[in-house]
Amino acid sequence: MEPVTSLPTEIADRLKRTPDGLVPAVVQQHDTGEVLMLAWMDDTALHRTLTTGRATYWSRSRNEYWVKGETSGNPQLVKEVRLDCDGDTLLVKVDQVGVACHTGARTCFDHGLLDA
Amino acid sequence: MEPVTSLPTEIADRLKRTPDGLVPAVVQQHDTGEVLMLAWMDDTALHRTLTTGRATYWSRSRNEYWVKGETSGNPQLVKEVRLDCDGDTLLVKVDQVGVACHTGARTCFDHGLLDA
Repeated sequence: MEPVTSLPTEIADRLKRTPDGLVPAVVQQHDTGEVLMLAWMDDTALHRTLTTGRATYWSRSRNEYWVKGETSGNPQLVKEVRLDCDGDTLLVKVDQVGVACHTGARTCFDHGLLDA
Repeated sequence: MEPVTSLPTEIADRLKRTPDGLVPAVVQQHDTGEVLMLAWMDDTALHRTLTTGRATYWSRSRNEYWVKGETSGNPQLVKEVRLDCDGDTLLVKVDQVGVACHTGARTCFDHGLLDA
């Protein structure tokens, strides 16, 4: 048998992607419940996330795959991945090493409280 | 003075929207940390969410504003709204009355565990 080198059909068939072929991924710290960030995955990024245990995204600004923590030293160790009821959003539960945000904050939402 | 009838400029200027004028909103139960769903907001939906205290979205399938719970009887009472570091994602912390998912599940991710 060939090794599985791409996303299994039974998962791929359930995905509803943007016109760019992406699905938003909500990233949550598995134990505290903190929402860390939102990122984007295509089929390959999702497959790599599921099979390597390291959260991997598609960078829309750099147009390349992005293994979270590969340059920052703050990887996300994947605990589980869920797809929502209509197949257009992923929830990635991780153990975030260090901080999630490029600003140095724990989450990308730490400093963004909006007033009415 | 005129009452504020649209999103304040200091918030609107920080939003990075999709070509359709939308920003994804991660919706989280404020006390348990459960991620309930992902929905989409335009400036008006965000303004209504901030000023009415009821989570209000833009429905991409129905092309209309959608006050969560108005038909289902399961509203989301808004506790706080945060914008992420790069202005392209909202985090809406709510008190979800009843269930969040149209399937009757508590969250839209309850039944979506993916295997590698």
